[in-house]
Amino acid sequence: MTRPFIFINSAMSADGKISSTLHRQVRISGKEDLARVDLLRAESDAIMVGVGTVLADDPGLRVKSRELRDARRKKGQQEDPLRIIADSRARTPPSARLLGPGCLLAAAASAPQDRLEELSSKCEIIVCGKDQVDLEELFSRLYEMGIRRIMVEGGATLNWSLLKLGLVDELYVYVGAMLIGGEKAPTLVDGQGFKEHFPKLTLCSVQQLDEGVILRWKPKT
Amino acid sequence: MTRPFIFINSAMSADGKISSTLHRQVRISGKEDLARVDLLRAESDAIMVGVGTVLADDPGLRVKSRELRDARRKKGQQEDPLRIIADSRARTPPSARLLGPGCLLAAAASAPQDRLEELSSKCEIIVCGKDQVDLEELFSRLYEMGIRRIMVEGGATLNWSLLKLGLVDELYVYVGAMLIGGEKAPTLVDGQGFKEHFPKLTLCSVQQLDEGVILRWKPKT
Repeated sequence: MTRPFIFINSAMSADGKISSTLHRQVRISGKEDLARVDLLRAESDAIMVGVGTVLADDPGLRVKSRELRDARRKKGQQEDPLRIIADSRARTPPSARLLGPGCLLAAAASAPQDRLEELSSKCEIIVCGKDQVDLEELFSRLYEMGIRRIMVEGGATLNWSLLKLGLVDELYVYVGAMLIGGEKAPTLVDGQGFKEHFPKLTLCSVQQLDEGVILRWKPKT
Repeated sequence: MTRPFIFINSAMSADGKISSTLHRQVRISGKEDLARVDLLRAESDAIMVGVGTVLADDPGLRVKSRELRDARRKKGQQEDPLRIIADSRARTPPSARLLGPGCLLAAAASAPQDRLEELSSKCEIIVCGKDQVDLEELFSRLYEMGIRRIMVEGGATLNWSLLKLGLVDELYVYVGAMLIGGEKAPTLVDGQGFKEHFPKLTLCSVQQLDEGVILRWKPKT
C-alpha cells in the first residue's frame, strides 16, 4: 500500500496517562513543548485525531504561530494542514472547533445518514469501511489526494488502531513532570492491547524540554 | 511521622504499561537495567511489593550479584534486604518465592485468621489497619525496626496507595523500547487516580540504558 508517512505526537504523564479518569484535558506539557508541537503541525500535510479526542477535548488543531502560517502560505500551502477526524459513527458534534473549511471526516458506511448529512455542510466526508473506518483505504485515498505526511494527535483508541495495523512510522512522546494515575485513565495506547509479539521500538532521540522529556521512537521493522 | 525513605522502581513500556492485559510478566528492560535494579536492591534495607505483584509475577526479590551479596554481609547486613508484602487480605500463596526467612507480610486485622496462621510459619506477620493495611503505621513500625530505605517494586495498586498518601520520595522509571497497549493493561500507577491537583514532579536525571531510558523523578513538595 502506498500511504503517507504517519507519526503520532502525544504528551503523557510520567505514568503514561494522556488524561485523567474524568477524561478531561490535563495540561501535561509547557510552552517549549507547545512550540515544538506547533512546528510539527506546520510541517505536516494533515493532522488527524479520533472522535474520542474531539468529544473530550474539542481541539482546534490549527497552526498557532503567525510566522509558521505565513511560511506555509508562501510555499503555496494552506495556512493550516488538513484536519482529519476518524469518526466511524459520525459522532462529531456540529459545533466542534476543528470543523469548517479544510476539515475532512472519515466515517464508516454504517454511520447514520442524518448525521452525515448534518456534518456535510461543515466538512468534507469520506466514507470507507463498513462498520469501522478502513484506515488503510483512507490513507491510500489521502495519498492520492497528495497528502504525504500525517501527524496523529491521539487519542488512545486511534493510536491503538494505527499501531495494531503497523501504520505508524514514528512516535514523539512527551513525558511530563506529573502523575495522573488511575486504572481507567486513558493512556498513550489503549484498545485491546498486544498480548504477545509486543512491537519493539528504536529510541531515536531523548531531549529535555520544559520540565519533562521528549522521546522519539521508531517501530522496528 | 518518622518513616523510612521510600522510592519506587519500575519498568514500563513506552506507552506506560507494566504488563499486558493478560497480567503476565513482560520483559521490558535488558541486562544493564537488571544490574541497576540489583544494585538498588542491595542498597536498600527492604524491598516491598503489593500482593497483586506476588500473584502475577511471583518474584523472588533477592539480590542476584554474588559481589553485592558479599558486600552486604561484610557490612554486617543480611545478604538480602527484608522482603515486605503489602497484603491486606493475606492472599499470598504459601508457595510464593519471596516467602521464607527475611520476609514480612503486612495484613489488615480483617484478614482471614486461617490464612494468617498458614502463612505465619513462612514469614513474619504484622497486622496494622482494619480492612486495609495502614501504610503509615506500617512504615512507622518499620522505622522503629531500623529500616531506613525501602525500595518499592510495584505493582500499580501499591504505587497508587503510596502516592495518594504522599509516601514516595523518589521514582525510578525505566521506559522500555516496546509497546504493550491495552485499556485494561496495568500501568505504573493505577487505583482511582488523581482527579485534580495532579502531583508535580522534578526530573532529576535522564539516562539511556539498554534500548530505553531511565527517568528519575522526585515529587515536588
